[in-house]
Amino acid sequence: MRSYEVKNRTNTEDIKSLRLVTAIKTPYLPDGRFDLEAYDALVNMQIEHGAEGVIVGGTTGEGQLMSWDEHIMLIGHTVNCFGASIKVIGNTGSNSTQEAIHATEQGFAVGMHAALHINPYYGKTSLEGMISHFESVLPMGPTIIYNVPSRTGQDIPPLVIQSVARSPNLAGVKECVGNDRIEQYTSDGIIVWSGNDDQCHDSRWDYGATGVISVTSNLVPGLIRELMFCGKNPLLNSRLLPLIEWLFHEPNPIGLNTALAQLGVVRPVFRLPYVPLPLAKRVEFVNIVKKLGRGNFVGEKDVQVLDDDDFILIGRY
Amino acid sequence: MRSYEVKNRTNTEDIKSLRLVTAIKTPYLPDGRFDLEAYDALVNMQIEHGAEGVIVGGTTGEGQLMSWDEHIMLIGHTVNCFGASIKVIGNTGSNSTQEAIHATEQGFAVGMHAALHINPYYGKTSLEGMISHFESVLPMGPTIIYNVPSRTGQDIPPLVIQSVARSPNLAGVKECVGNDRIEQYTSDGIIVWSGNDDQCHDSRWDYGATGVISVTSNLVPGLIRELMFCGKNPLLNSRLLPLIEWLFHEPNPIGLNTALAQLGVVRPVFRLPYVPLPLAKRVEFVNIVKKLGRGNFVGEKDVQVLDDDDFILIGRY
Amino acid sequence: MRSYEVKNRTNTEDIKSLRLVTAIKTPYLPDGRFDLEAYDALVNMQIEHGAEGVIVGGTTGEGQLMSWDEHIMLIGHTVNCFGASIKVIGNTGSNSTQEAIHATEQGFAVGMHAALHINPYYGKTSLEGMISHFESVLPMGPTIIYNVPSRTGQDIPPLVIQSVARSPNLAGVKECVGNDRIEQYTSDGIIVWSGNDDQCHDSRWDYGATGVISVTSNLVPGLIRELMFCGKNPLLNSRLLPLIEWLFHEPNPIGLNTALAQLGVVRPVFRLPYVPLPLAKRVEFVNIVKKLGRGNFVGEKDVQVLDDDDFILIGRY
Amino acid sequence: MRSYEVKNRTNTEDIKSLRLVTAIKTPYLPDGRFDLEAYDALVNMQIEHGAEGVIVGGTTGEGQLMSWDEHIMLIGHTVNCFGASIKVIGNTGSNSTQEAIHATEQGFAVGMHAALHINPYYGKTSLEGMISHFESVLPMGPTIIYNVPSRTGQDIPPLVIQSVARSPNLAGVKECVGNDRIEQYTSDGIIVWSGNDDQCHDSRWDYGATGVISVTSNLVPGLIRELMFCGKNPLLNSRLLPLIEWLFHEPNPIGLNTALAQLGVVRPVFRLPYVPLPLAKRVEFVNIVKKLGRGNFVGEKDVQVLDDDDFILIGRY
Repeated sequence: MRSYEVKNRTNTEDIKSLRLVTAIKTPYLPDGRFDLEAYDALVNMQIEHGAEGVIVGGTTGEGQLMSWDEHIMLIGHTVNCFGASIKVIGNTGSNSTQEAIHATEQGFAVGMHAALHINPYYGKTSLEGMISHFESVLPMGPTIIYNVPSRTGQDIPPLVIQSVARSPNLAGVKECVGNDRIEQYTSDGIIVWSGNDDQCHDSRWDYGATGVISVTSNLVPGLIRELMFCGKNPLLNSRLLPLIEWLFHEPNPIGLNTALAQLGVVRPVFRLPYVPLPLAKRVEFVNIVKKLGRGNFVGEKDVQVLDDDDFILIGRY
Repeated sequence: MRSYEVKNRTNTEDIKSLRLVTAIKTPYLPDGRFDLEAYDALVNMQIEHGAEGVIVGGTTGEGQLMSWDEHIMLIGHTVNCFGASIKVIGNTGSNSTQEAIHATEQGFAVGMHAALHINPYYGKTSLEGMISHFESVLPMGPTIIYNVPSRTGQDIPPLVIQSVARSPNLAGVKECVGNDRIEQYTSDGIIVWSGNDDQCHDSRWDYGATGVISVTSNLVPGLIRELMFCGKNPLLNSRLLPLIEWLFHEPNPIGLNTALAQLGVVRPVFRLPYVPLPLAKRVEFVNIVKKLGRGNFVGEKDVQVLDDDDFILIGRY
Repeated sequence: MRSYEVKNRTNTEDIKSLRLVTAIKTPYLPDGRFDLEAYDALVNMQIEHGAEGVIVGGTTGEGQLMSWDEHIMLIGHTVNCFGASIKVIGNTGSNSTQEAIHATEQGFAVGMHAALHINPYYGKTSLEGMISHFESVLPMGPTIIYNVPSRTGQDIPPLVIQSVARSPNLAGVKECVGNDRIEQYTSDGIIVWSGNDDQCHDSRWDYGATGVISVTSNLVPGLIRELMFCGKNPLLNSRLLPLIEWLFHEPNPIGLNTALAQLGVVRPVFRLPYVPLPLAKRVEFVNIVKKLGRGNFVGEKDVQVLDDDDFILIGRY
Repeated sequence: MRSYEVKNRTNTEDIKSLRLVTAIKTPYLPDGRFDLEAYDALVNMQIEHGAEGVIVGGTTGEGQLMSWDEHIMLIGHTVNCFGASIKVIGNTGSNSTQEAIHATEQGFAVGMHAALHINPYYGKTSLEGMISHFESVLPMGPTIIYNVPSRTGQDIPPLVIQSVARSPNLAGVKECVGNDRIEQYTSDGIIVWSGNDDQCHDSRWDYGATGVISVTSNLVPGLIRELMFCGKNPLLNSRLLPLIEWLFHEPNPIGLNTALAQLGVVRPVFRLPYVPLPLAKRVEFVNIVKKLGRGNFVGEKDVQVLDDDDFILIGRY
């Protein structure tokens, strides 16, 4: 299922140079389907404020709550509408090698510029199995590997990355285990993006990371861009930390979903098992916005504290 | 699941003016997956020889043998690679209203320019049910309705078309019941494409059809373009009739699949229940090509008679 | 995917002797999911009144509006709850050979006693292709082939049946083209069930049919049982004809769905593209019930004329 | 989608009393489909040696590598063939609430006796979200909740279990965090099964666990039955520990898959991302079998050391 038409468009080097990639939120209609108008607005705001790539259907975008046909559709939609302005990186990873193969073929076929791959979470496997898993998908196109043991229950150790780095398609690693690991890779010439917003400033300026794959940039894309592009800025970094701490108080994207709803840029619709943050936290967010400045956040409406009744939680969609 | 980004791209008038739309063949790899390289080459040849639109996953393209995720992927792929050069019309019709709704939403989301819809074949329904079926999908975007009672077991009578023609999204009708019906519609101001290659010359020049949605143009796009664009040409029409008769000797796309394989532009791989034409017919085709001139046909290789053993028939894919 | 556990349960001879098989209705909840309680009640009434088999997800049961996972679930459910009392024949046919193979494997795996197979409707194929299609699924277990050109757009000619009849798994043919065809098969030793309720009496007693695969028996199972088991009975046959004519006034199962709702045994929920019969026809049905006797029909509630507003029509489910 | 036919069959008390439940292996054909004959043989051996329940499609059975239609089919198949002899517990859990709802409805519809549910792994959620997730599926039937933070990345804390224990459908907890947690639950009257074979003896006899949901019982069902039924037996427990350690040297089911292939009861076919243990470990297994006695293991063939080339690893199926 190769296609020269598609292959000739992106090469791995184009991916390696990205400094700000946003793990974009997927917004929903009240019946649980995608709200593509709201989604398009979110992506447009990212482009406008300087994000260079989006992860479509990452854990932030709730790929784990999508059927594969929805997921591939969203990748295809994003490429079709925005592919000329921003790199589209589809999270076509899975803990099932078969699903990862199928989704990655389809994602590249509809034009995604790169794939994001995860080690087999939950089911887990041996290191040899992990390598086989990645080798099943690497030949298809530019690839970022994502290491997040707090979600997967299993670290991807450097020897696995070193093994798969022999493929010219490996663009780099989205790494969440910390700056020592990042330094280890970057000193070996392997491209790394920080997967932790609270560490990304130091990762970028002190440990060799190329940039960040960010959640926070959904909210304040311009500030995260500044953090990645405009030189060391510990002051800005420390100003952002309260927001970042608030965002990750509960597993992501609970905070992000709550925040975007209160900013009025998405409907307050949650697909279960996600539920909004409680009222006290919702009040906190409004204060954080005011402190950082509403103008730094996406959207134009006043930020508001939503009531419990404003939220729609959906189990069947 | 609406998206202004997508909506603003095509309007129904753009579809109404198409004269040559090819119901494009879907080629396969030996394991039954899509052969996207061969597909891209086929679409490029259509663009080069003047086709203005393609039907993706029509009965010719064997949409009935695709899973919906394959089908939407192929639509998204076609839009992504060729959408700037040719109109992409996704056959997102189904005899299940639910499937038609879901596929049509997805097809428009990945950027198709128009949808092709069929009345509920096999399951059938009442005329009131047929209207409800079409009304469920018409609001989503530009739409062509396809009437082919020899496949569906049920005619779409003019009163149904007149009813749904109140929607501004109805681009027109692909009509297979003959020129009297075509004349009836075109005299009422409803756009019609001939769905029968053997009648399309007369439909176009004598009965008011705008053009043709063609199978034969997969093979000889330039000649069918001439037939639709360059004025009445009964001589050319009669020269094409032996090819057309050969093509439809067995249910389409059996002839087409056999022909394209012998022209060397697709692998000789069939998804069951399609099987190649028998040897005698395969010999006939080579003679037809020689008579019409190899240069009028797609591809550059010598046309050849394939052996039974050259074909791969696949039931599991 | 063979299993001796399952295989040893039913042999083709058990299927060949069935005289009354009901193409059972699938009832729905207001959100469009299956109403399994109502379904179980319907099947129980069939068992009680002497039906010996059910077709699950036939055209009557709206298999064409089911996802395959729903379809296989319903087969598994029926086997699990009723398999000891009635033969469960899954309509695992499809116009896609791949889907037919997959569904038939799954259907036999969950214990269905036989498969019902259709020739490739809508997509159609050559006679050689048709034979290949049936030969792909026949090895899996007892099989009934269904011929209904008015739905499929293509007759299954006797030479195809004779070819596949070499398989010991062919139980017989559900034939809708009429009594001459039935006689042709039965005189050759091929088992046939009438697929036309209006002809089934004569098929059974004058043309050699073993029995009927009936729609009408959803409503009056005891009377259809009498028609098939208790000897020639032209009087009963003629008393049933007005009901049968009413039922097939619009494409089945529109009449059946309307009737069962008015008898109070299923909720008045239609999956599109089916819509209820109009009021005048609904009044007619009540009169037919009164004339034939409420006690001959399934259910215990008074038959009633439903209002337009009582019906729920669903496109997304 | 409720069904009295199904509901009346099992009550939660029937599940609460099970002492030996095997998380059954799913064997494959060389093309990656289920090998139902081998599967049936495995289940029959479990019944014969005293297992009282099976988990179908657990992490051991590689539910994470199944499509949902395969998964539900396997549950339905197991119920249909063995439901009278053994309790069938379907792993219809998912990190997507929607998928868990859909699969659990389908699983109960095809007759499973209980559902196994997991907290949302990988995607994770808040404790409130976790409770909402479980409450979405608990009303459907008898339920076991599975806590395995080393796979999910998130502990299910006692307050969540206490909250959902208000549902009469909660049969109990499969707990992997250790015996202190088990004691905490059992002293509160909550039923617990050990999820760690190396601890299950002590869990059962010293900490109040009702029994075990075991991987090792796939290999030596009779010995695990003895361990759970025949009183404290530290000697037997210590004799089993080398086997258990061997089994869990790499993430389960890698060891189990390797072992069953070498015992000759399943084909040496692995769905990726699982790969067999290396040769040295395969040799070790044969020695362990000899030491414990071949007769204690399932199957009748000689145990053998397989070569690397004997294994088939499959990515597309």
